[in-house]
Amino acid sequence: MTGKFERPRGTRDFRPEEMQKRRWLEGVFRGTFARYGYREIQTPTFESTDLFKAKSGPNVVDEIYTFKDKGDRDICLRPELTAPVIRFYVNELTHEPKPLKVYYYGPCFRYEEPQEGRYREFWQFGLELIGPEGPAADAECIAVAVAALRDAGLRNFILHVGHIGVLRALVGQVEAPPAVKADVFRKIDKDSEDLGDTLRTHAPAPLAAAIEGIARHRRTLASGDAAAVERYFAEARDLTRGFPVEQALADLRQTVALLHAYGVEQVDLDLGVARGLDYYTGMVFELEAPDLGAQKQIGGGGAYTLAQLFGGEPVGSAGFGLGFDRILLALEKEGAVPAPTSAAEYYVVPVGEPARGPALALAQKLRAHGKRVDIDIMGRGPGKAMQYASKLGIPRVVLLGEKELAAGTVTVKDMASGEQRTLPVADLV
Amino acid sequence: MTGKFERPRGTRDFRPEEMQKRRWLEGVFRGTFARYGYREIQTPTFESTDLFKAKSGPNVVDEIYTFKDKGDRDICLRPELTAPVIRFYVNELTHEPKPLKVYYYGPCFRYEEPQEGRYREFWQFGLELIGPEGPAADAECIAVAVAALRDAGLRNFILHVGHIGVLRALVGQVEAPPAVKADVFRKIDKDSEDLGDTLRTHAPAPLAAAIEGIARHRRTLASGDAAAVERYFAEARDLTRGFPVEQALADLRQTVALLHAYGVEQVDLDLGVARGLDYYTGMVFELEAPDLGAQKQIGGGGAYTLAQLFGGEPVGSAGFGLGFDRILLALEKEGAVPAPTSAAEYYVVPVGEPARGPALALAQKLRAHGKRVDIDIMGRGPGKAMQYASKLGIPRVVLLGEKELAAGTVTVKDMASGEQRTLPVADLV
Repeated sequence: MTGKFERPRGTRDFRPEEMQKRRWLEGVFRGTFARYGYREIQTPTFESTDLFKAKSGPNVVDEIYTFKDKGDRDICLRPELTAPVIRFYVNELTHEPKPLKVYYYGPCFRYEEPQEGRYREFWQFGLELIGPEGPAADAECIAVAVAALRDAGLRNFILHVGHIGVLRALVGQVEAPPAVKADVFRKIDKDSEDLGDTLRTHAPAPLAAAIEGIARHRRTLASGDAAAVERYFAEARDLTRGFPVEQALADLRQTVALLHAYGVEQVDLDLGVARGLDYYTGMVFELEAPDLGAQKQIGGGGAYTLAQLFGGEPVGSAGFGLGFDRILLALEKEGAVPAPTSAAEYYVVPVGEPARGPALALAQKLRAHGKRVDIDIMGRGPGKAMQYASKLGIPRVVLLGEKELAAGTVTVKDMASGEQRTLPVADLV
Repeated sequence: MTGKFERPRGTRDFRPEEMQKRRWLEGVFRGTFARYGYREIQTPTFESTDLFKAKSGPNVVDEIYTFKDKGDRDICLRPELTAPVIRFYVNELTHEPKPLKVYYYGPCFRYEEPQEGRYREFWQFGLELIGPEGPAADAECIAVAVAALRDAGLRNFILHVGHIGVLRALVGQVEAPPAVKADVFRKIDKDSEDLGDTLRTHAPAPLAAAIEGIARHRRTLASGDAAAVERYFAEARDLTRGFPVEQALADLRQTVALLHAYGVEQVDLDLGVARGLDYYTGMVFELEAPDLGAQKQIGGGGAYTLAQLFGGEPVGSAGFGLGFDRILLALEKEGAVPAPTSAAEYYVVPVGEPARGPALALAQKLRAHGKRVDIDIMGRGPGKAMQYASKLGIPRVVLLGEKELAAGTVTVKDMASGEQRTLPVADLV
């Protein structure tokens, strides 16, 4: 840093090589979403602060960039994209054919302490599936998220799938103030040691045992092993006997069966996935890249209802968000990101000013054939020009001087082999 | 609008069809910039407010979104991208080989009255060419901007090229306070009737005549007409005889010659282009789409120096910004935007729940072959499914029921012709 103005804390400048990697991953994800019939939409970078308060509660303002515009309206930089998409849906898209299948990609903003894999400006890819609800919708959602990671080439990631309906129904039976129930959910989410004590203080023993058992009922299931899936759900039914969670368990089981049909072989079933957020209603899932350590969560989502909070009719919906930056980081750790290409395929060097016009015309011809062409505009001699091409990794230098002009030829140097040959202009193009 | 939360004033939500058009144009522009050897960089969506004050003066805060973050720092949503790019250059890229050829694409923000073609959040595509200065750099800059518009298929646009050095040198000779000189530039920029009177009040007659003459010295020049170019510059020299503008005129003439070599046939030379901004130092240019009426300016740029204002060493630089939204609008008015494609190429319909698993597997196979495939997740019968496919413009519906399952076949309906045939699964894939 030598300049007078610093980049804002927690934000990033991206160099060309980094942008190439980002655009590569963006292209991969776009391809995945398109192959599943999702189409891109886009909402503004800022929104009214009330939108996110309605979704996440008043405390959300502590974690986001809020400000007043010159018309004294409370606006904020969006911290996530589900609320804006559902606002857009409620305001303008309710008459579209259902299911409405949309995806988004864009920057989001949170005011939090920066660290590796955690930025104040970060990018989210995600989708919302509006209209249907139930296992077919849930499974599609998860399948697209997994397909995106696979298409990008990520090998080491874990899919956790649960159903918030089971814990909600159980905790709903606890006769205690809402603050206690919230505390129970927090302890489940954090996998806290105190969960059992808290439960036994507030709930009868069978209910306490059911909640604790479900919160810790996790197993990794491979698609080939139908017996293990059976066993997992039989145990879940045993744990919750007498409580109204049959439908939620049956739905989750069907979701797992469909995921296997989609080719998602390995699922970590975890009925303790709480996702912290009130608006989820059914299936919930999380994606983790263990290589990333503390910031290992790379995506998550589930079935939810939001439209009625924003003034719309209730509508089934499911969706997920992928942490674009973290996924790229995980891919880099696995060496799965393609090397950046050079800035150009040809570097054209007019030797002497009279050659500049013809050199420009030649460069234009190559470009018209789709080639990426740089041309010297510093008036450098051939030696310096070669150095520049070499530093930028441009594979071919095309020299055009007095001799070549007179003969209607160009001299082409292959930078890798050092080989140099003179050929008619027409042959190059 | 039926919802409780409005989209912020002056911003837009983009539907899938609109986003397809936007991504199409983005792809065209990326292709153009890449073919000229430019590489993408990216800077944060917000910056310190001081950065833009240093570039454009303290009054810039009246037109932009400024706010304090929770650390009491003055930040703002960027109103343009040249200042951030040069900040990035000064802080981190000074040791890169020169010329440094970078481009950018992203949202910018201005607090101004919304109207057609004028939004509070708008998108800019642009480039900066850092290192060289002079006609070769100037001409390349203009040529890339023109190539981008041509590659997009825009037919009706006008290129104005001037050289701020000529007017600067002349107005510099006026012995008057800076406020008067600023007023002169404003009147030139607005093509004001009062310009002559103001000049005659403050400058001797020959100087007043030179300034007024140059401010109105415009001509459309075609590349074939070398004599007209000669005449234009001969007249400019006559208008400015005795004033130190020979070099600026010679540079501009060379730029025009190079533009013709680039294949930019038509140039509106206009020595009165003032661009309003103090940081331009030499060549200045503007692009207009006359079809857009009052908001006809679709791009502009020039040679400038900014690095030293941001704490860096002075460096030659030139660049431009293109108004992405307005260019798209102009292309739409010309009917030059490709029609959006449908959401999917196939719509797979499992008839009855037992068919769902095999239908998912079939959809996955088609996707593995790169096809865009939607699948029914609402449990609809074939009739409703056809209606959905028809509304979404999906050309082929694939039915998979009990009969097909048993026979290892699928029934495919071509939605355009109505033709329906049954074929083995393997033949479809």
